[in-house]
Amino acid sequence: MLEELRAVLGEVLVTDAAALEAVRADKSGHRSAAAPLAIVEARDVAEVQHALRWASAHGVPVVPRGAGTGLAGGAIAGAGELVLSTARMNRILEISAADQLAVVEPGVINGDLNTALAAHGLWYAPDPASRAISSIGGNIATNAGGLMCVKYGVTREAVLGLKVVLADGRLLELGHRTVKGVTGYDLTALFVGSEGTLGVIVEATLRLRPLARGRLVTVSAAFPAVTDAARASSAISARGITPAAMELLDAAALDGIGEHLGLDLGGRGAQLLVQTDGAAAASEAEQVVEIVAAHGGTAELAADEAEGERLFAIRRAFHPAMERRGTVLIEDVAVPRSALPEMFAVIERIERDHGIRIPTVAHAGDGNLHPNFVFDAPGGDAEVPAHIWAAADELFRACLALGGTLTGEHGVGLLKRRWLRQELGDDSLELQRRIKAVFDPAGILNPGKVF
Amino acid sequence: MLEELRAVLGEVLVTDAAALEAVRADKSGHRSAAAPLAIVEARDVAEVQHALRWASAHGVPVVPRGAGTGLAGGAIAGAGELVLSTARMNRILEISAADQLAVVEPGVINGDLNTALAAHGLWYAPDPASRAISSIGGNIATNAGGLMCVKYGVTREAVLGLKVVLADGRLLELGHRTVKGVTGYDLTALFVGSEGTLGVIVEATLRLRPLARGRLVTVSAAFPAVTDAARASSAISARGITPAAMELLDAAALDGIGEHLGLDLGGRGAQLLVQTDGAAAASEAEQVVEIVAAHGGTAELAADEAEGERLFAIRRAFHPAMERRGTVLIEDVAVPRSALPEMFAVIERIERDHGIRIPTVAHAGDGNLHPNFVFDAPGGDAEVPAHIWAAADELFRACLALGGTLTGEHGVGLLKRRWLRQELGDDSLELQRRIKAVFDPAGILNPGKVF
Ligand SMILES: Cc1cc2nc3c(=O)[nH]c(=O)nc-3n(C[C@H](O)[C@H](O)[C@H](O)COP(=O)(O)OP(=O)(O)OC[C@H]3O[C@@H](n4cnc5c(N)ncnc54)[C@H](O)[C@@H]3O)c2cc1C
Ligand SMILES: Cc1cc2nc3c(=O)[nH]c(=O)nc-3n(C[C@H](O)[C@H](O)[C@H](O)COP(=O)(O)OP(=O)(O)OC[C@H]3O[C@@H](n4cnc5c(N)ncnc54)[C@H](O)[C@@H]3O)c2cc1C
Repeated sequence: MLEELRAVLGEVLVTDAAALEAVRADKSGHRSAAAPLAIVEARDVAEVQHALRWASAHGVPVVPRGAGTGLAGGAIAGAGELVLSTARMNRILEISAADQLAVVEPGVINGDLNTALAAHGLWYAPDPASRAISSIGGNIATNAGGLMCVKYGVTREAVLGLKVVLADGRLLELGHRTVKGVTGYDLTALFVGSEGTLGVIVEATLRLRPLARGRLVTVSAAFPAVTDAARASSAISARGITPAAMELLDAAALDGIGEHLGLDLGGRGAQLLVQTDGAAAASEAEQVVEIVAAHGGTAELAADEAEGERLFAIRRAFHPAMERRGTVLIEDVAVPRSALPEMFAVIERIERDHGIRIPTVAHAGDGNLHPNFVFDAPGGDAEVPAHIWAAADELFRACLALGGTLTGEHGVGLLKRRWLRQELGDDSLELQRRIKAVFDPAGILNPGKVF
Repeated sequence: MLEELRAVLGEVLVTDAAALEAVRADKSGHRSAAAPLAIVEARDVAEVQHALRWASAHGVPVVPRGAGTGLAGGAIAGAGELVLSTARMNRILEISAADQLAVVEPGVINGDLNTALAAHGLWYAPDPASRAISSIGGNIATNAGGLMCVKYGVTREAVLGLKVVLADGRLLELGHRTVKGVTGYDLTALFVGSEGTLGVIVEATLRLRPLARGRLVTVSAAFPAVTDAARASSAISARGITPAAMELLDAAALDGIGEHLGLDLGGRGAQLLVQTDGAAAASEAEQVVEIVAAHGGTAELAADEAEGERLFAIRRAFHPAMERRGTVLIEDVAVPRSALPEMFAVIERIERDHGIRIPTVAHAGDGNLHPNFVFDAPGGDAEVPAHIWAAADELFRACLALGGTLTGEHGVGLLKRRWLRQELGDDSLELQRRIKAVFDPAGILNPGKVF
């Protein structure tokens, strides 16, 4: 059966053991029980179409995969599945300064795109912390967020149009090259964040911004308690200031980073990092300093942009610092911004009740928290232990009770399926399933993910 | 059959002749062939649910209606149809400065919401020219744009969550109070712009912005030819300047407005009005003045905000000026911003070929044009004459050929159904129909609209 596919695709069909082993995992710490059938490392749209036609004909489940940096298990493939990788479709097809847009293949790495755009004075704003290693296709399929999304929008706001291949191999064009357009339902938005369950993204038309962000001013503020820092950040949002980035690190996060970088970050309850940009950067930063002081924090203004960069480097060291400590379950809840202090209080309570530490960073400007559960996973088969899930379960329920959501930017994938019904409710879940069936009636695309 | 409904809804069910007559039309100039069955002027969610359950049980088609200011015929009701008006559901349920959001019923008038928000220093950005008369529910159902959407986003970007009632009467909650969230497909985005075909919007959670826009600077520029003005506006976009508003008026539009206001606006080929705001307002305006001069225009800077307002009042007089002249078919095409000069050249050609004038204004910052076809409609039964449709048809085809879209912000409704397949293609259209069927399997919601 596979030979039929190999006859057409040749070396694009990969079946060597090491490659198959690699696609059993992503960066979630999860791993499938067994290796998949094969990987199609498609180089163009026709190969994607061919693979999907073959899979449809034979009822073979297909797992779309970008760079494999996902944190929800969405790209993990197991026994009997075909991986459809778009990693090799990595050409930038067009950069238009006149229309402030780019047309790209899905495998282009986010950071590479921005390197190419910089030469044109342009910028693609969505900036996941994984920008150096994640692909635009994966970013779109997960509706990736990032540090600067608080001001410049998440991936959804930056996608004008898509080309997608459906399960049956049909190629579909969605959206526009225009910035506005309301002809029919917004299927582009439906595909953004669809986690490989509706179709394979094979091309994207992206909305760009001018690179010039003006002056960057960075404020770093230490607080005695994380709830104070959260109150300060909520107050900054409520005041109507929109920083370009506003990140909050709790004490456990600071401990881990300090250890990793060999810095003394101890003794503080929390750190708030705020960056403002543009013509109002200085005056906004001044207001931030005032609000910090009013909430019991000690703020310092970075002397220049280089020092600002050094301060944010502390934040960027968070993931590597956690990975050093063990296997990590990176959570991703979001709450209304006013509920940040309460959410941090909940995390402190769960830490106490469960006798564990939950180092947490937050994109505080959008109320999006990443509580990290670190555990030992001897042998590398990183099943999340039951006591960790028990603590995470409490976290999710508390977050929903605060009017929040299970996942701010990483997606549902495999890891959050259990809680999906609780957030969406029976009716919404049923409608979502039926929408999935409109695009993929046989259910061959990423089965077992999300739903 | 109707008595069954009246027994429950009482005076909420309206059947007097004048009211039924009014809902045969919207502001498109179209009118249905006969009056509908009745109007449900719902006051709360339960009444909407009741009406839809009744309609489902009896197979009665339902036409959702907000303020009736639509320009695509989407809210027009005819024989045998039940109008479900949400105009009386007009309470503002919550304004949260802390979370920069408002929760409103769908009947709230856009301008009234902003009046209430101003007291809290907040602002709901989407600003259709009809903001004083159109409802938030209608704005959402059409994904309304406006003058400042170029900088502050269209309605889609301002809707965090919705409550909707499905055709069978079920109440559904979509989206979040959080600014980010990727749990499942983005059904909120699917409802934005759905023109009453998927469900009735009964509540919306809206994203707000701080009211303070800083200084406003207005540049007004006269050009000898409209294509020069269009080139200047394309150049402003390409330079990466994002004005708060950038409006272009052609010679025919200026003639009409001049006549209406008793001003001498003659002799110019076109006028470009640009407003910048925020901390960079002055420097951006300076760049605009330079670009205008480089493209053969004569720019003047408004001395103050009051003069800026007076200049934009010229733009706002466009609709009333056209209405004075006869019955108007207001078109709404959008093209990539670099194609604006070409699109204006096409309009000039169509004017010559068809021996008509097509006064046109454009939200030039988003490439969205409103060519106006003015014609006589004796007796008020405003069927668009065949020769006008012939000219409009050429316009649509040219716009699609330039990579544009049939409708930038007004919607498909009744008026653009004929061209829908041409823009979407067979496969997309078929998928859209099947999505409609997921929400409304019996097809009772706004049948004959869009599709
Ligand atoms: C250190 C680190 C930091 C991170 N920081 C962030 C962050 O700040 N913000 C954030 O949002 N995420 C973050 N992530 C998570 C991850 O990088 C994002 O989810 C990213 O968007 C995934 O892109 P990818 O190319 O690796 O996709 P993959 O992991 O390969 O796939 C992710 C999902 O997308 C689907 N998919 C991939 N390509 C396609 C395609 N062409 N067509 C259809 N479906 C497709 C897959 O089926 C899967 O469901 C981080 C991850 C790491 C390891
Ligand atoms: C002078 C003038 C200027 C205009 N300028 C602009 C402009 O700048 N930008 C712009 O985008 N539009 C503009 N419009 C068009 C119109 O005002 C918008 O389309 C507006 O959003 C319609 O709102 P409404 O409440 O009047 O809706 P209606 O006209 O009542 O309905 C419009 C559509 O929405 C549906 N609908 C209404 N309420 C609901 C609900 N609660 N649930 C589900 N569906 C519903 C209807 O079925 C219909 O399909 C203008 C119109 C006029 C007359």
